[in-house]
Amino acid sequence: MSFNTFGRLFRFTSFGESHGPAIGCVVDGCPPRIALTVEDIQRELDRRRPGQSRFTTQRQEPDRVKIMSGVFTDETTGRQVTTGAPIMLIIENVDQRPKDYSAIKDKYRPGHAGYTYDVKYGIHDYRGGGRASARETAARVAAGAIARKIVPGLLVRGALVQMGPHKIDRARWDWNEVTKNPFFCPDAKQAEFFADYLDGVRKAGSSCGAVIEIVAEGVPAGLGAPIYAKLDGDLAAALMGINAVKGVEIGDGFATASMSGEDNADEMRMGNDGKPVFLSNHAGGILGGISTGQPIVARFAVKPTSSIRIPRRTVDKFGRDTEIVTTGRHDPCVGIRAVPIGEAMVACVLADHYLMHRGQVGEGTAWPFPPRGSEPRVG
Amino acid sequence: MSFNTFGRLFRFTSFGESHGPAIGCVVDGCPPRIALTVEDIQRELDRRRPGQSRFTTQRQEPDRVKIMSGVFTDETTGRQVTTGAPIMLIIENVDQRPKDYSAIKDKYRPGHAGYTYDVKYGIHDYRGGGRASARETAARVAAGAIARKIVPGLLVRGALVQMGPHKIDRARWDWNEVTKNPFFCPDAKQAEFFADYLDGVRKAGSSCGAVIEIVAEGVPAGLGAPIYAKLDGDLAAALMGINAVKGVEIGDGFATASMSGEDNADEMRMGNDGKPVFLSNHAGGILGGISTGQPIVARFAVKPTSSIRIPRRTVDKFGRDTEIVTTGRHDPCVGIRAVPIGEAMVACVLADHYLMHRGQVGEGTAWPFPPRGSEPRVG
Amino acid sequence: MSFNTFGRLFRFTSFGESHGPAIGCVVDGCPPRIALTVEDIQRELDRRRPGQSRFTTQRQEPDRVKIMSGVFTDETTGRQVTTGAPIMLIIENVDQRPKDYSAIKDKYRPGHAGYTYDVKYGIHDYRGGGRASARETAARVAAGAIARKIVPGLLVRGALVQMGPHKIDRARWDWNEVTKNPFFCPDAKQAEFFADYLDGVRKAGSSCGAVIEIVAEGVPAGLGAPIYAKLDGDLAAALMGINAVKGVEIGDGFATASMSGEDNADEMRMGNDGKPVFLSNHAGGILGGISTGQPIVARFAVKPTSSIRIPRRTVDKFGRDTEIVTTGRHDPCVGIRAVPIGEAMVACVLADHYLMHRGQVGEGTAWPFPPRGSEPRVG
Amino acid sequence: MSFNTFGRLFRFTSFGESHGPAIGCVVDGCPPRIALTVEDIQRELDRRRPGQSRFTTQRQEPDRVKIMSGVFTDETTGRQVTTGAPIMLIIENVDQRPKDYSAIKDKYRPGHAGYTYDVKYGIHDYRGGGRASARETAARVAAGAIARKIVPGLLVRGALVQMGPHKIDRARWDWNEVTKNPFFCPDAKQAEFFADYLDGVRKAGSSCGAVIEIVAEGVPAGLGAPIYAKLDGDLAAALMGINAVKGVEIGDGFATASMSGEDNADEMRMGNDGKPVFLSNHAGGILGGISTGQPIVARFAVKPTSSIRIPRRTVDKFGRDTEIVTTGRHDPCVGIRAVPIGEAMVACVLADHYLMHRGQVGEGTAWPFPPRGSEPRVG
Repeated sequence: MSFNTFGRLFRFTSFGESHGPAIGCVVDGCPPRIALTVEDIQRELDRRRPGQSRFTTQRQEPDRVKIMSGVFTDETTGRQVTTGAPIMLIIENVDQRPKDYSAIKDKYRPGHAGYTYDVKYGIHDYRGGGRASARETAARVAAGAIARKIVPGLLVRGALVQMGPHKIDRARWDWNEVTKNPFFCPDAKQAEFFADYLDGVRKAGSSCGAVIEIVAEGVPAGLGAPIYAKLDGDLAAALMGINAVKGVEIGDGFATASMSGEDNADEMRMGNDGKPVFLSNHAGGILGGISTGQPIVARFAVKPTSSIRIPRRTVDKFGRDTEIVTTGRHDPCVGIRAVPIGEAMVACVLADHYLMHRGQVGEGTAWPFPPRGSEPRVG
Repeated sequence: MSFNTFGRLFRFTSFGESHGPAIGCVVDGCPPRIALTVEDIQRELDRRRPGQSRFTTQRQEPDRVKIMSGVFTDETTGRQVTTGAPIMLIIENVDQRPKDYSAIKDKYRPGHAGYTYDVKYGIHDYRGGGRASARETAARVAAGAIARKIVPGLLVRGALVQMGPHKIDRARWDWNEVTKNPFFCPDAKQAEFFADYLDGVRKAGSSCGAVIEIVAEGVPAGLGAPIYAKLDGDLAAALMGINAVKGVEIGDGFATASMSGEDNADEMRMGNDGKPVFLSNHAGGILGGISTGQPIVARFAVKPTSSIRIPRRTVDKFGRDTEIVTTGRHDPCVGIRAVPIGEAMVACVLADHYLMHRGQVGEGTAWPFPPRGSEPRVG
Repeated sequence: MSFNTFGRLFRFTSFGESHGPAIGCVVDGCPPRIALTVEDIQRELDRRRPGQSRFTTQRQEPDRVKIMSGVFTDETTGRQVTTGAPIMLIIENVDQRPKDYSAIKDKYRPGHAGYTYDVKYGIHDYRGGGRASARETAARVAAGAIARKIVPGLLVRGALVQMGPHKIDRARWDWNEVTKNPFFCPDAKQAEFFADYLDGVRKAGSSCGAVIEIVAEGVPAGLGAPIYAKLDGDLAAALMGINAVKGVEIGDGFATASMSGEDNADEMRMGNDGKPVFLSNHAGGILGGISTGQPIVARFAVKPTSSIRIPRRTVDKFGRDTEIVTTGRHDPCVGIRAVPIGEAMVACVLADHYLMHRGQVGEGTAWPFPPRGSEPRVG
Repeated sequence: MSFNTFGRLFRFTSFGESHGPAIGCVVDGCPPRIALTVEDIQRELDRRRPGQSRFTTQRQEPDRVKIMSGVFTDETTGRQVTTGAPIMLIIENVDQRPKDYSAIKDKYRPGHAGYTYDVKYGIHDYRGGGRASARETAARVAAGAIARKIVPGLLVRGALVQMGPHKIDRARWDWNEVTKNPFFCPDAKQAEFFADYLDGVRKAGSSCGAVIEIVAEGVPAGLGAPIYAKLDGDLAAALMGINAVKGVEIGDGFATASMSGEDNADEMRMGNDGKPVFLSNHAGGILGGISTGQPIVARFAVKPTSSIRIPRRTVDKFGRDTEIVTTGRHDPCVGIRAVPIGEAMVACVLADHYLMHRGQVGEGTAWPFPPRGSEPRVG
């Protein structure tokens, strides 16, 4: 199947190939009367845009987005707002060099989707990876910019916490540093190291992987749809579905396998405001597939870019053994630009679950202390 | 929202609470005329059944399943087959001891879903975890037993590869060992160590985590639904949605972050049968969200059981600080019984994608060597 | 495909064959803390139950429903309420006489689904129509009984307005009469005529059709999901999907084709309470796929029962010309018992749209006079 | 909710407002390697295009469609084919006169969706009806042009069979006439009458309704997804969801209510080719929600246009009684242009069900004579 729609109530459907005329998406299910300008979306796209440093692909795409539908001027305030109708966002492709691909168009890059697209569909647009290109993720970032406005008080941020085998020092984590280096790295010192490291990788014609961490604050407790649309299940699908991602963790993730039950337990105490307080967050803000009200913490591993200049053995589409060298413009570490993409996907999942929760349970969910509502609905 | 249906074309909807009268599921979308007996399902349930060793909960549930609909006797062969109609499977709950829970019914177990269910719904069936109990996973195993019959030649197996901080020695991996120890462990020597280790954990009133690996062989190349229902994305959701799972990996998973592009590349050569052969499987059988034809390899981390006898600080539903000790019958390592559950979820995802692929692309997908079909459909 | 789940947020999945051990459904997505007893459901099932007069099938099915999950006792009030978890409802089949069908098991009844099920699936449970039996509609009525409790103030009622070629006199419409005759007929005088008419049909071994009208009052304005899940679109699918239904109308339906624009317009005036009032309801309570706040009016046509004692030419499953006479226990006019079924389907659609609307737009939708909210959400 | 995606496997998501920059849709799930040119789509759009006679709105929209993604040149044949990726189709709006609407922008047209959109969303783009405009249906026609190519041998045609109270004479039905008059009318003589009749309606500033009939030939037997996505249920939703439609019938529709069981039965005989032949088609090609292999026949009623020059009483958005006269450019009978729209919706439903059927049951469904396959799949 081909399935290019993400989400249940807050949904977006993306379209477009890397070297076609345009890419974009249709965002559907957005609540009405949310202030929305093209700058709200452009700001996020600019964070993902290629060609901003020597560490990402040199393709020059301005990635200017246009809003083609679903907004209108509110007469009372004069502001542009959503109308509840589908919001179509389009980004023209500008810097296409299809001939970059002629040398490799019949060869399968090891680790690249070109092979499986051909096996599945019997044809694929090979120019720049076509539909499988990371360029498609611009549509996700655009949709995510709208999603961010749906859950009141939500703050979704991401950071690169590992490049190749090198991790950051979490004691030096400073969110302000993330915008100050080309790696979205919260550890200023390690960012300096990463610059040298990645220069080496790039010059060697190689590539490297990365680990990204996304933190969502301001998530209301109670979001999640047990059993088969759990919040963590949906986050896992959303993050694993980003190009080149091979692993996803929530909270302490794989490390919990090595922990004892007593150490893993996030103990609770009543806070001064009469609400429960967790004394730790090993769970990453989710229990039983439902948000606890603590920050949601997710990490994902991005494999090294498959497009490298070091020759690899492969086959071509005529069934012949051959060798491949990929010389086009590529990110030596696709993990870097995955930071805003990961944020966008998390924002979309949260917006969707926020609406789903409101649908089943309504607004103003009572805190369970004292026990919610003394009388059930009689119906 | 509440969302208890899994899958798109091959779907199952589960129901039931741990201490209600029964649990089960309705399997919908199964192809017709597949031979199916109750033994096919019972065999899988027996693998997950509790109380079979001192290392799992002592709750005695025979877990006898009944097929209530969707099968009929084929007159030509006299065999019971599926009819294409929904297959309802029901398992009665037998060994309920709700009073085991009276001491803790108003207290929230740290790390347990009871708290979030109360926050979300304002009420929950606390007996044995109610809907959030791992008992619900019996329905998944039952559905998975049917899913296994849908993809011709499919073999889905799982194994425990880590308990607490202790990993197996992969050089000693022997699938035959998996059935010979109570841990589904493919490393016979490490299984002996696990017995001692887990006895210690259990006697201390503690619990431990685990890592499970699932391997699916015989998966046709081409399964997957790009972009937002990728095969790996759906597997990630399916496995992360199992109770207590905090991390999921495909292929080399998080380790790929530390690999170079050239090492991570699964090189290809033409095989003797005229089909491409991969020289390694770092990708775990999936590229671009589509199966490559290699074995699919997925791993997931299970956190330590939250129900422990070591006292933990918590709050109760009346908003008071308190302490909790959980004395009921619990698995000291829920990861053990997660092996057949993980297998079932992988089988369901694969069956679903097999039908989805057949829907869009049809049967007999041409191999791309020589290029598929010289003529497109004129329409 | 087989698709046995109805609805988007308020969903139910039905299972079971006419002569299998049981039928039933799993209701998912129901809001929590709604008071629900088995009597709430039984009451509706009793209205649909066969064998209550000489005008319906003489099959004796007590249709006793059991609630197997999804409810719990609220500790504060001692009442049984929904928990937000799936509610499984099961009805055992009691009065099966499969041998009634042996004479016709290899012959296709003209106008019956047995032929198409065989073409599609290559096998079907022919006993009593198996999955295609009207018996499946008991599951709909059961789900509908829960749906009725979700939209506050909702009242869904139905009536038979035509039997064979004979219409009721709408001037004599009295809702109180509906429960006083075996036809759910609001026109007492015509009901007397129907008794004689249907006796004639039944004795002749023939059957007749009917038209049913459903009226839903108390539907809030604003329900509906443009463009491809409009409220009227969903109602049309829900009603057309009832066994033997061949036509659906909303409001004035087919008659609007013959009306002028000025006559069809439902003019508006401000009411004394400051809310708009419609001066007519040709639209049947829906404009642009969204409810207006007026009563929703839908009608559907039920074809005559295909199981008749008058011989018809047909073929058998071995490809031979033959003749068929159906002598089992059948309703001479299936339209009669379609009344509670139609009500149930309308209630389910409305519950679903109520939750969907709340999801996207939230509670307390402002009336547009004065224009809603002076400030958009800044996001 | 807002729900702008149609279909399950063959899906399209539409976007755009009547007076925004563009409208269009994203078609997803289309099989790969189907030859597709922009002319294939333009041809269908041209049939729906306004301003082609004095009987439709004088808005001049060339409705030129562009294919923005999802197609590629097949190297073997040099033809443009689908790739299995989403196909984005865009149509720019050219002839916008938003000031036509300034006089009525604050008044609710009786029978128009403006009122319900405001109630639901608190805001709507009133220019030309915005999202609720019939202009949105161009997206459906475009998607339908692709759908037509999916089911081999499918022919979907439509005709206007009633205008106002005047029906055609079915004895004079000639499909060739449909393209020869501006009404899609298969009865040449009645088409002449319609010209005079509609001139009168138009000059009076009034409007009238219509009934449209769609016939789909070449539909394979076996399509349909019982129980809650029956083929007729999905057709009913698809047709009722077209703007201004108030009734839908399959086969003999409402007339079946007046028929006897023996007259309604479509008797069967074995044909010379060893396949069953139906002797009539009261069922309209569908039994039990599954296609029989006979032509599928559906009809729908379109109400008179709500935009008329005859004054009607209404209220404005400030809650004041007022009167409205709509002077813009409008179709006096929207039913005329509903013919290609109805065809498109039927084609989309059939394409979707064709893929769904292939998903569950596979290709080459065996005819049930002799009974299908002697051996079930052993699994």
